[in-house]
Amino acid sequence: MSKLIDFQTDPSRYRHWRVEYDGAVARLIMDVDEHGGLFDGYELKLNSYDLGVDIELADIVQRMRFEHPEIGAVVMQSGKDRVFCAGANIKMLGGAPHAHKVNFCKFTNETRNTYENSGVESGQHFLAAVKGACAGGGYELALACDQIYMTDDSTTSVALPEVPLLAVLPGTGGLTRVTDKRKVRRDLADVFCSIEEGIKGKRAKDWRLVDEVIANSKFDDFVAERAMEVAQTAKAGKDIKGIQLGPLDRTFHDDGSLTYSTVDVEIDRANGIATITIAGPDVPPPKGLDELHGLGDQFWMLRLARELDDALLHLRFNELEAGVIVFKSQGDPELVAAHEDFLFDHRDEDWLSNEICLNWKRVLKRVDMTSRSLVALVENGSCFVGVLAELLFAVDRSYMMDGDFEEDNRHVAALKLTPENFGPFPMSNDLTRLETRFLGAPEMVEEAKAEIGESLEAEDAERLGLVTFAYDDLDWEDEVRIFLEERGSFSPDALTGMEANLRFPGPETMETRIFGRLTAWQNWIFQRPNAVGEGGALQRYGTGKRGEYDRRRV
Amino acid sequence: MSKLIDFQTDPSRYRHWRVEYDGAVARLIMDVDEHGGLFDGYELKLNSYDLGVDIELADIVQRMRFEHPEIGAVVMQSGKDRVFCAGANIKMLGGAPHAHKVNFCKFTNETRNTYENSGVESGQHFLAAVKGACAGGGYELALACDQIYMTDDSTTSVALPEVPLLAVLPGTGGLTRVTDKRKVRRDLADVFCSIEEGIKGKRAKDWRLVDEVIANSKFDDFVAERAMEVAQTAKAGKDIKGIQLGPLDRTFHDDGSLTYSTVDVEIDRANGIATITIAGPDVPPPKGLDELHGLGDQFWMLRLARELDDALLHLRFNELEAGVIVFKSQGDPELVAAHEDFLFDHRDEDWLSNEICLNWKRVLKRVDMTSRSLVALVENGSCFVGVLAELLFAVDRSYMMDGDFEEDNRHVAALKLTPENFGPFPMSNDLTRLETRFLGAPEMVEEAKAEIGESLEAEDAERLGLVTFAYDDLDWEDEVRIFLEERGSFSPDALTGMEANLRFPGPETMETRIFGRLTAWQNWIFQRPNAVGEGGALQRYGTGKRGEYDRRRV
Repeated sequence: MSKLIDFQTDPSRYRHWRVEYDGAVARLIMDVDEHGGLFDGYELKLNSYDLGVDIELADIVQRMRFEHPEIGAVVMQSGKDRVFCAGANIKMLGGAPHAHKVNFCKFTNETRNTYENSGVESGQHFLAAVKGACAGGGYELALACDQIYMTDDSTTSVALPEVPLLAVLPGTGGLTRVTDKRKVRRDLADVFCSIEEGIKGKRAKDWRLVDEVIANSKFDDFVAERAMEVAQTAKAGKDIKGIQLGPLDRTFHDDGSLTYSTVDVEIDRANGIATITIAGPDVPPPKGLDELHGLGDQFWMLRLARELDDALLHLRFNELEAGVIVFKSQGDPELVAAHEDFLFDHRDEDWLSNEICLNWKRVLKRVDMTSRSLVALVENGSCFVGVLAELLFAVDRSYMMDGDFEEDNRHVAALKLTPENFGPFPMSNDLTRLETRFLGAPEMVEEAKAEIGESLEAEDAERLGLVTFAYDDLDWEDEVRIFLEERGSFSPDALTGMEANLRFPGPETMETRIFGRLTAWQNWIFQRPNAVGEGGALQRYGTGKRGEYDRRRV
Repeated sequence: MSKLIDFQTDPSRYRHWRVEYDGAVARLIMDVDEHGGLFDGYELKLNSYDLGVDIELADIVQRMRFEHPEIGAVVMQSGKDRVFCAGANIKMLGGAPHAHKVNFCKFTNETRNTYENSGVESGQHFLAAVKGACAGGGYELALACDQIYMTDDSTTSVALPEVPLLAVLPGTGGLTRVTDKRKVRRDLADVFCSIEEGIKGKRAKDWRLVDEVIANSKFDDFVAERAMEVAQTAKAGKDIKGIQLGPLDRTFHDDGSLTYSTVDVEIDRANGIATITIAGPDVPPPKGLDELHGLGDQFWMLRLARELDDALLHLRFNELEAGVIVFKSQGDPELVAAHEDFLFDHRDEDWLSNEICLNWKRVLKRVDMTSRSLVALVENGSCFVGVLAELLFAVDRSYMMDGDFEEDNRHVAALKLTPENFGPFPMSNDLTRLETRFLGAPEMVEEAKAEIGESLEAEDAERLGLVTFAYDDLDWEDEVRIFLEERGSFSPDALTGMEANLRFPGPETMETRIFGRLTAWQNWIFQRPNAVGEGGALQRYGTGKRGEYDRRRV
C-alpha cells in the first residue's frame, strides 16, 4: 500500500457510485465495481467498500453542496439486488497496515459527519432507503443519514456484526450513533451488536434501529414521496444554480513537495517536517455576488479551502513520517480581511457565500483531527487574519516573531481577529477555538473580542494569550529549531495520544465521542492479536475458520 | 505476576503510608518502602508506587470516611526529602503484562476519583502539599486533590514527563485533569507535557498547574493554617465518632471460588464464567441509629458493599479469563427494602447512613467500570430491590424467569424499584442508570417511577423495559446457556471495546473522559512498539539509552 493516494476525483471517473438528479431530489446509488479496488488483493463484493469508494462519496457530498445546491433530499440506495452494502471490505482491512486502517476510518468518519450535517447546514437531507443486507459499515452509512427507511422482506436486515464476526468494533461511528443518535436502549444495543445476521422488520423499528419499515410492494413509492416532501420543505421557492468545482491546480515535485495555487507544501523528510505555506489573495474581493458566482471555484477563499484540505489528506495518507506540520502564511492582511468580510457580509442572502463558510468549518475541523503535531509560525509578512487566524488556535503551539529582524523587509508579524473567530467555525466539541483555548479564563475571550480589527503584534498577541511564545531576532531561529528537533525526538504514538487529549478539553459531542472514545478503542483493538494476529478473526475471515482468541480480559 | 493480589489491608500492615490525626486535620504521609514492592524485580525508589502502594491508599481513603468522619482536611505530603512522588514505578510498568498495566491504571483512577469526590460528598478535602519533585503519577496524585500548594525552591517542580521520557501518556487522569479540572490553556499544556524537568515556582501558578506557590520558610505554616481553615469550615460543630472496618469474612476455596458472609463467587474456569450470588439479609434492619452504629461494619448493607467490591477487584486482577460475570441474588425482597428504607430515612441526619449510601455509589460505579461482560439473572427466590436492582441496570443484559418453574419452590421472580433507583446512585456520566437506559425514551423513566414499591414479575418488568429478556420454564435454561456460550465465543478485546462504548451513552464528564478517551488512548499506546517494544522507551528506561522509534504516524 505504498502508491500515492489521490483524493481528487470527478463524476467522469466514478466507478462505484451514480447520482441521478430529478428536481430537488437526488438518488445516490451505490453500485461498487468489484474489480475497482484501490489496491490489489481483494474484490469489492456485495457493495463492500475501500478508501477509493469513500473518496468518491466524499467528492459527491462536496459537489452536492456546491454544484447542486437545488437538491433538498438525497436518497442513498443500492444499485445491487439483495444487498444494500456489506460494509468495509474485510480482506482490504485485514491486509492493510495499522496506520492505513486508522486513517481510513478517520476519513470515512469525516465523510459521514459531513453528510450528516448537510441537512441542518444546507438543507440537503440524506435518506437511506435500505433494501437487502445492510451490515457493518453499510449500516453505518445509513446511520449517518437523517432517516432510515427499510423494506420488509426476508433478505433485508440491518446489522453490526463486527464483534461476533471480526473481533473488531463498528468503528465508523456505529456504536456511538446507535447509543447517542438513535438512542437504542443499551441492553438491546448489546444484543443487536451480537447478532451476526442482524435484525429485520418490525423489531428493527421497535428497537429504534430504523425509522420506518415498509412493505416491499410500497417501498419505492413511499421513499419517493418522502424524498419529495423533505426536498420541498427544505428548498421551497428557492431558485438556485450551482457552480462547477474544477480540478485543483496542483503540481507534485520530485522531492515530495507540492504546490497549489494558494498553498505550498514543503517536505523535509530527514526531519519529519511538512511546512504548509498559505498565500494570501493578490486581488481585491469581488465587487458583488455576480462577480463571486462568476469566479466560482476560483474565488480565493474557496480555492484555498479546497487546496488546504487536499494537502492535509495527502500528508495524512502519503507522508506518514511527517510528524510535524508547520503552518505559515504570507500575504496582505488587509486583502485577507476584505475577502472574509465580503463572504460573511453576503452569507445570509447568498447560498454560495454560505457554503464557502461551511466548507471552511469542515477544513478547520480536518486540521483539528489531523494526528500530527501542529505548529504555526507567525512570521514577518504573514497574514493570519480571521479564518486564517483560526489555524493559530487549532495548532498545538504557535510561535511569533517579535520586533525587527535583520535584513527582513517584510511587514512586521501581526495577527488580526475578526468576528469570525467568535462563532462560525466551531470545533467538534461545539465551542469556538478561542472558547476552547480559554476554557479556564472565559474573560480572555471577551478581551480578545474587544481587539477585533486591531493589528496585534507580538507583545499584544502574547498578552492576550493568542500565541504560545514570541521571540525576537536573537532567539527566534534557535527556539523554533530546538522545538522542532525536540518534537521530532518524541514517540509519534505518545504524541498522537497526548494531542488527542489536549486538543479537545471540555464538553463532548457525538462527533468528539466518535473520534475520541470509539476511535481510540477501535485503534486499540486494531492492534490486538485476537483481531489482527495470525489466528485473529480479521485475518481468518473468509477462510472458514473462526478466530482463535486469547481469553484473558484486559 | 501470577500471585494472588489481595485488596484487603489495614493500618497495622501499611508499609508505604502513615496517617497522623490531629483534631479535624489528618496528615497523609507518603513514605514508600523501596523494598516493599508487590512483585519482585524493582525497587520503589523516590516514592514511586506500584499497585501495593495504591491498595494502601485506597484503604486509607475508605477508612478516612468510616473510621475518621471527624476529619475535614487531609494534607497529602511526602515523608522523603527532595521528592514528593516520582509517579508509577517504571520498571514495574515495563515488566507488567498489558492486562496488569490496564487494570492497575483503572484501579488507581478509581482511587483518585474517590478522594477527589470526598470533599463535596463527605466534607473531607484533600490538599496536596508539594515539596520536592512531583512528577508523572506523583503530580496526578496532587491533581486529584482539591488544592495544590507548592513550595518555591530549586528542587520542587510539577511535571508530566511521560511523553518525552517514556513514550506513554500520563494515564491516571493527568491529561484530562490538566485540561478539564485545572483548565490549563491547551498550548501551555502541550508545552508542560513536553518538559521532562517540569515547571517551578510562579510559572506553575500562572499556568494554573498549582493553586499557590509559597516561600519555603513559610510553607509548613501556610499549609497547616489552610488545612485548619478548610477542616473547620467542613466539620464545624460536628461531634462525630467513626466505626471500625474489621477484616472481611472471606474464604478462598481450592477450586477458585470464594465465599463471603453475603456474597458467593463461583468460578467456572472452563467456560470463563464467574457467578456472583448476593444473599439478602436474614434479620430486620436496626431499630434506630444506636443499633446501626452498634452494628457498624456488620450492618448488612455495608458488609455487602465491602464484600462485593472486594469480589469485583479479585475477579479483575486474579481471574483474567472470567470474561463473563453473572449476578444473581437470593433472599427476602421485603427485608432488602426494609434495610434500604432505614438507611435512606436516616441519611440526612446520620453521617454513617450517608457514608454507606456513598459507598454503594462507588461500588456500583466499580461494576460499571468492570471490563467483563456483565449479565444479571433474575431467578425465582431473588431479591433485586432498590440498590440491588441497580445491578440490573448496570449489566449489559438481564434475563428474568417468567412464571412457574417445575420443582422450584422459591418465590416467583420479581423485582422492585425504590426511590433510590431515581437519584442517589448516578453513573460516572452523572445520569442515573435508568436515565441512561432510557435516553431515547425519557417517558419510560416516569413510567418506572410510577411503579415504585410494586412487585414486578416478568411480564411487567419486560413491559417497563427493565429487563432484556424473560423466559419461561421451557426456554429459560437453553436461552441462558446459549447466551453464555455465545458470549464466551467472542473476542474478549472486541467485547471490552463494545461494552465501553455501549455502557456510557449520552453526556460525558471528567470521569467518563478519563475512563473513555484518555484510558483508551493509553491502552493503545501500552501496546505500541514505540513504548513497549524491545527498543521502546518504557523498556529502555534506566538503561541510559533512549527509545528507538518507528517514526510513522498512525
